[in-house]
Amino acid sequence: MSYKNKAMLCDYYEFTMGNGYFKKGLADRISYFDVFFRKVPDGGGFAIAAGLEQVIDYIENLHFDESDIEYFRSKQIFDDGFLDYLKNFRFTGDIYAVPEGTPIFPDEPILTIKAPAIEAQILETYILLAINHQSLIATKAARICRAAQGRAVLEFGARRAQGESAAVVGARAAYIGGCAGTSNVLTDKLFGVKAGGTIAHSWIQMFDSEYEAFKAYCELYPTNATLLVDTYNTLKSGIPNAIRVFKEVLIPKGINDFGIRLDSGDITYLTKQARKMLDEAGLPQCKIVVSNALDEYLIEDLISQGAQIDTFGVGERLITARSEPVFGSVYKLVAIEKNGEIIPKIKISENVSKITNPHYKKVYRIYDRATGKAVADQLCIHDEVLSEGEPIVLFDPNAIWKKKTVTDFTLRELLVPIFKDGKCVYNKPSLDEIRSYCEEQCDTLWDEVKRFENPHKYYVDLSYKLWETKRELLLSGK
Amino acid sequence: MSYKNKAMLCDYYEFTMGNGYFKKGLADRISYFDVFFRKVPDGGGFAIAAGLEQVIDYIENLHFDESDIEYFRSKQIFDDGFLDYLKNFRFTGDIYAVPEGTPIFPDEPILTIKAPAIEAQILETYILLAINHQSLIATKAARICRAAQGRAVLEFGARRAQGESAAVVGARAAYIGGCAGTSNVLTDKLFGVKAGGTIAHSWIQMFDSEYEAFKAYCELYPTNATLLVDTYNTLKSGIPNAIRVFKEVLIPKGINDFGIRLDSGDITYLTKQARKMLDEAGLPQCKIVVSNALDEYLIEDLISQGAQIDTFGVGERLITARSEPVFGSVYKLVAIEKNGEIIPKIKISENVSKITNPHYKKVYRIYDRATGKAVADQLCIHDEVLSEGEPIVLFDPNAIWKKKTVTDFTLRELLVPIFKDGKCVYNKPSLDEIRSYCEEQCDTLWDEVKRFENPHKYYVDLSYKLWETKRELLLSGK
Repeated sequence: MSYKNKAMLCDYYEFTMGNGYFKKGLADRISYFDVFFRKVPDGGGFAIAAGLEQVIDYIENLHFDESDIEYFRSKQIFDDGFLDYLKNFRFTGDIYAVPEGTPIFPDEPILTIKAPAIEAQILETYILLAINHQSLIATKAARICRAAQGRAVLEFGARRAQGESAAVVGARAAYIGGCAGTSNVLTDKLFGVKAGGTIAHSWIQMFDSEYEAFKAYCELYPTNATLLVDTYNTLKSGIPNAIRVFKEVLIPKGINDFGIRLDSGDITYLTKQARKMLDEAGLPQCKIVVSNALDEYLIEDLISQGAQIDTFGVGERLITARSEPVFGSVYKLVAIEKNGEIIPKIKISENVSKITNPHYKKVYRIYDRATGKAVADQLCIHDEVLSEGEPIVLFDPNAIWKKKTVTDFTLRELLVPIFKDGKCVYNKPSLDEIRSYCEEQCDTLWDEVKRFENPHKYYVDLSYKLWETKRELLLSGK
Repeated sequence: MSYKNKAMLCDYYEFTMGNGYFKKGLADRISYFDVFFRKVPDGGGFAIAAGLEQVIDYIENLHFDESDIEYFRSKQIFDDGFLDYLKNFRFTGDIYAVPEGTPIFPDEPILTIKAPAIEAQILETYILLAINHQSLIATKAARICRAAQGRAVLEFGARRAQGESAAVVGARAAYIGGCAGTSNVLTDKLFGVKAGGTIAHSWIQMFDSEYEAFKAYCELYPTNATLLVDTYNTLKSGIPNAIRVFKEVLIPKGINDFGIRLDSGDITYLTKQARKMLDEAGLPQCKIVVSNALDEYLIEDLISQGAQIDTFGVGERLITARSEPVFGSVYKLVAIEKNGEIIPKIKISENVSKITNPHYKKVYRIYDRATGKAVADQLCIHDEVLSEGEPIVLFDPNAIWKKKTVTDFTLRELLVPIFKDGKCVYNKPSLDEIRSYCEEQCDTLWDEVKRFENPHKYYVDLSYKLWETKRELLLSGK
């Protein structure tokens, strides 16, 4: 999808509402919206925030060109004044967000926007799209890499991705979540995620024999050759031919950096046999790479069965987050300004889980000072200040008699300023910095939060003041 | 993802192989690759082909620019001659494909490419990406629209799509599969799929009361106003306020085109109550739109429970094909030319289902003349000719004693020429033509093939000549 200016990648109702605000004198009403999600995919204990860099790019380039205005004019429902407004549109508000790579939890704001109503509305679709997609993939990648227990995981999914940007920025998000590289050349060129890959079955079939195909490849690429051994018969032909070629072509040159790749069959059995054959041939340095519809569950199984694997190539189940391919962030009005005053707003729902946390907020993450581990997140009203000197009383917002006092802790505000009065004030970290930060922050989580089955529910609590505000709004019914 | 030239949206190994073919004198070897898939998502009986238009655009724009060449040079493994080759790269081969909107079945070619080895290899990633993504969404949309039994289905998923192109061309594919419109403005602007939408909860909350919010909206947009009624309390507040506003603002103007939308709660119960309240208020013309994580299964349930719904808004479960978000087309070498002769190739696998159908092929769809219904597809070797005058003996390639003779039939070749010697020779249909063609072709399928649970397996058979070729290759082991 080639469309540099993404202004029109937007739900139609943002414009019917925008035009409506314009006509009803609400254009300049300062509004506060939170982005948050309700449920971690795959029943996990936490998610990984990603996509902010694309949100920033989007906002910085956001404008409507003549053909866009013509499009709206042709609909014959938009006011000329509103179309003039769109012609001169640029974002003028503030945005706060958690940095990419941050472990995040349900029901806490991961991005807050303060802007005139029309602006906030027009940004909604793209912000959700970018954050939902990349957080989904970063979260899935982190799960898969966790399952791989230190073995390298490579992202191989471009051909099964849901479209071009899913392939390209999906591989970016996978890198944030812990993947070591990608097959996608464009992600390497644009984002510096190292691309790799060697041969497909077609390479083998293009030659008169598997042996000749392997030999040709190792002659061409003596360093880091990974030979695909399952074209004809893995154990009877693929591995023996690979061993022969490694010994004929690479070993005499003193090269020890090579491997084989398996893409079908019973991976546990085949990798055990392969390891044995390679070791017996005096090639213990030969790496074993596997691919074939892998995900965190299959990887856990393979490892627990003793499969002999050095590197995982992960395709469709990572790049589409196959087991749960939706990250459900929403964008909800939490406050408006009226006569200079911030008025909190709540969305009540017949589905209790859809009731929002009102008001313009900040989020503190509380770390235990002794262990460095994250204890809880506390949502506060924007002007509340927690201090490391004073104990914090945490309580379950749905069961307020369940209390816990935290004393020896450090605090970090999760939402950092990204835009101020329409200008980007954020010093964008490099992708490698984001990836390291992600790893480091995941280390602050207890193992109980990180397990796949029935993870411990990390506390996301409200300050007493915020809880009271919410209760009052609930009782008053609006 | 803003990248007009998608040449680099490609797996790295296409280039290591390409460079290898170049260096080993195989650059000009004519190769034949088939794109086909092995399994219909969601256990369905057929899929819908889509994405060809994007493949054509891609090929027509395909070239490597200076920065791409520099990227490869920096890897220090690519031959200068190969980089010169890439600098002048353009596609010179032939492509045959089934038109977009065609019902397709496992194991039959949906695209065949005949080209020099390097070219065929470089095109692989993008062709699979485009066809996999759009066929996935078109197939899912067709299922959802089938479940809706004639009620309109609108695509509302942009915010949950897996990235930008997933949102934009995903909505295009959804339209091919039968959706009536989209929320995505850019898909309307680029592809002419009508975008629509009215208000979110934030519109209601921006006003002092729900009544005022509804009234403001209907005054602004008297035609086609759809009011979201679940912000506070659907039955006690939302619907009564909507009724009041319709009667105060629209009915006096003689307007009868309006509706309400429900996005939460028990949809069956609420829509039944809503219908009753609207009818009793003398507003039987008021339409009921529902949204809220719907898919074909929920829609079937709602309808069978008697829910009163005129239009479905379908989001995340369509745009991500949530229940099975991968369309697994593969790209396999089926023949090469050597000394002017076409030599069929097969990929044998320890997974029997992964064994390919070899050779340069054509596909006939056989329609029963009396009913117009599709009876079977037959894969033939490229130079075989079936004729409507002679009976065809169909047999199950896995159980050749199971035979059936078809007599009174019409034939259609499914693969049509798209590129010839690198030039597009295809008269691209409009999106509306594709959508109508899809509907018409789906009508040629028996209901047994179209049902969701245990659909009848449509016959995809091999001609005797092709079956023999395959058997010989299998027995010879290559």
